[in-house]
Amino acid sequence: MRTQVAIIGAGPAGLLLGQLLQRQGIDNVIIERRSGDYVLGRIRAGVLEQGTVDLLREAGVDQRMAQEGIVHDGFELALDQRRVRIDLAGLTGGKTVMVYGQTEVTRDLMAARVAAGATTIYEADEVALHALDTERPRVTLEKDGEHVELECDYVAGCDGFHGVSRRSIPKDRLKTFERVYPFGWLGMLSETPPVNDELIYSSHARGFALCSMRSRHLSRYYLQVPAEENVEAWSDDRFWTELAARLPNDVAERLVTGPSIEKSIAPLRSFVVEPMQYGRLFLAGDAAHIVPPTGAKGLNLAASDVHTLYHLLTGIYRDGRTDLITRYSEICLRRVWKAERFSWWMTANLHRFSDQENFERRLQQAELEYATGSRAGLTTIAENYVGLPLEALM
Amino acid sequence: MRTQVAIIGAGPAGLLLGQLLQRQGIDNVIIERRSGDYVLGRIRAGVLEQGTVDLLREAGVDQRMAQEGIVHDGFELALDQRRVRIDLAGLTGGKTVMVYGQTEVTRDLMAARVAAGATTIYEADEVALHALDTERPRVTLEKDGEHVELECDYVAGCDGFHGVSRRSIPKDRLKTFERVYPFGWLGMLSETPPVNDELIYSSHARGFALCSMRSRHLSRYYLQVPAEENVEAWSDDRFWTELAARLPNDVAERLVTGPSIEKSIAPLRSFVVEPMQYGRLFLAGDAAHIVPPTGAKGLNLAASDVHTLYHLLTGIYRDGRTDLITRYSEICLRRVWKAERFSWWMTANLHRFSDQENFERRLQQAELEYATGSRAGLTTIAENYVGLPLEALM
Repeated sequence: MRTQVAIIGAGPAGLLLGQLLQRQGIDNVIIERRSGDYVLGRIRAGVLEQGTVDLLREAGVDQRMAQEGIVHDGFELALDQRRVRIDLAGLTGGKTVMVYGQTEVTRDLMAARVAAGATTIYEADEVALHALDTERPRVTLEKDGEHVELECDYVAGCDGFHGVSRRSIPKDRLKTFERVYPFGWLGMLSETPPVNDELIYSSHARGFALCSMRSRHLSRYYLQVPAEENVEAWSDDRFWTELAARLPNDVAERLVTGPSIEKSIAPLRSFVVEPMQYGRLFLAGDAAHIVPPTGAKGLNLAASDVHTLYHLLTGIYRDGRTDLITRYSEICLRRVWKAERFSWWMTANLHRFSDQENFERRLQQAELEYATGSRAGLTTIAENYVGLPLEALM
Repeated sequence: MRTQVAIIGAGPAGLLLGQLLQRQGIDNVIIERRSGDYVLGRIRAGVLEQGTVDLLREAGVDQRMAQEGIVHDGFELALDQRRVRIDLAGLTGGKTVMVYGQTEVTRDLMAARVAAGATTIYEADEVALHALDTERPRVTLEKDGEHVELECDYVAGCDGFHGVSRRSIPKDRLKTFERVYPFGWLGMLSETPPVNDELIYSSHARGFALCSMRSRHLSRYYLQVPAEENVEAWSDDRFWTELAARLPNDVAERLVTGPSIEKSIAPLRSFVVEPMQYGRLFLAGDAAHIVPPTGAKGLNLAASDVHTLYHLLTGIYRDGRTDLITRYSEICLRRVWKAERFSWWMTANLHRFSDQENFERRLQQAELEYATGSRAGLTTIAENYVGLPLEALM
């Protein structure tokens, strides 16, 4: 079996890259360890930057998003009882974000791929990458008991933090940057109307809380919990009571409660490997970097990697520009580190740290006081939230 | 002996407060442990915010500053070889800073005080504060072997970090916030023309360096050194060589070297006590808070405390408004913490930390890359550097 680009992972990054390449006539095969249903079952982020929306449009998968997605031109910070609106559009010259669940993005991309007749191998076992530092890399796997060998020109590693792609790079060729936060997010999905039209990021003495949503009828709420917390300890009642306690009174009064559909705890981590490429393997998204979810950068950063890789691969197949691809990592990392910085800033300043010294707590308060009291400060939050410009591909 | 306001400390904060009160007809006595010459011998900061300049003008001591001070409408950040100008005036709607040494400010204030015929007791030993939580506080001291007792309405503690004022407040009434940095600044004063018209803050792999000045013929340079460093280890030659190594090549080439006039090492510390008042004692400047020198906030923050205390005391003696003075600490601390934040930010991002993890180093780089690449980011630096607005006294 032979293709031009082998894509490891059928999450949104791999599917988006596949769809973009497909439309340029670049042959690609996606290999996924799990089933399609499993991939769709994962509840993830739901805030898309304008650049991500534009890329989905370029991939031709924006029809349902245009109908069902909700454009947000602001969000709120709640600092104990004080509410500060971040006027995204007003502070950035009209830029906005789109609330549309990652699950829906994935579903749309899967449907488009089926319609395009492109090959996806789901439930691929024993996926392994070979000869990455040559001009003829190969991917091997087991599918329904059969051994499959896929020859290709390039491999895109879109298989997330735990995937095989990053692990296929010799350890001594990668430098790892990491911070693990001493807390996680307990998330709950519920078929209730969201408490607010816009997202509310709440910094409270009891801990951080986030009021998010997937649609006008589907709420997504999060609570900061200790890293070692057990989800079983959180009944729906306990969740709603704690959420209300962490919101400004006027917001808490409007909270509509109901049974949960899903509840889970995610750890918070910052992680980056450098470089993001090895021979003909290119890492994109969570395979190369993780951001804590505060600031909603994970999916968007994956999309910006895909944007870069798509343009560089197109440059090769259409224009014979093989020189730029060597700079893939360098181009991506400039934006990756800025998004890591913003995600760290939001995380560090909105959460409570149990081991926090007095001085650090006051710095946190001063940071929020300054940033919310200055137009320049508000603009730094807004322009990062809507997404910094994509890096020029020069 | 009796006065309205007893001022402890004849540094710039105490002298400025004394002069402002004097012009409002409010009687005050300054008590200083050292001699006037000793006070003038201390080499300190040299960058005045617009608000400080305005306050010196209000105190009637701006004549020499207006002639000899140098208005700076920008400064530079050097990030290894890259130089980024912070256009203070352009980013803040025309605000600037004034380069005029603290020693000169002190000299002008001393001269004005002598001219006004106000009392200053220099070389006062055994200074002690009494009955601060009553309406009749007292200051006792020994002067030339005589015991002196000074009755007053209010006491202004302007006697710095090591002074008696803060130590006169019961320990259980103060909360302390502190960070000690693992490095100091080795400063050198030299009668050489400054290497650049504007200040250069240099972040370099070998450590931080600052090119500052006191006048067109007097340079002031600083090097980050380990906290435990001995000044004896630094010959003039070694200083100049190390300074050149930490500057961009095009700057280093222009460096004019010469013998040092003064060389000393200062530790870097962030420190705040809350509240800044106890009964009828009000702390101002270094007695209540220390900032690391990166960002030049120390003297300016003292001036903004003095501004607040001056207005509150004037409100009492002129208008009988005794209610607002209870809010002195609260009013000051809002601005203090923002200046602490900025000084911490500049210190944390421009210095090298020997124990820095990989992730933290990259965050530091991302912070500087983002801030210098965004107009909003540049504006946050500029508006803090020229000084945030003085707090409204309502």
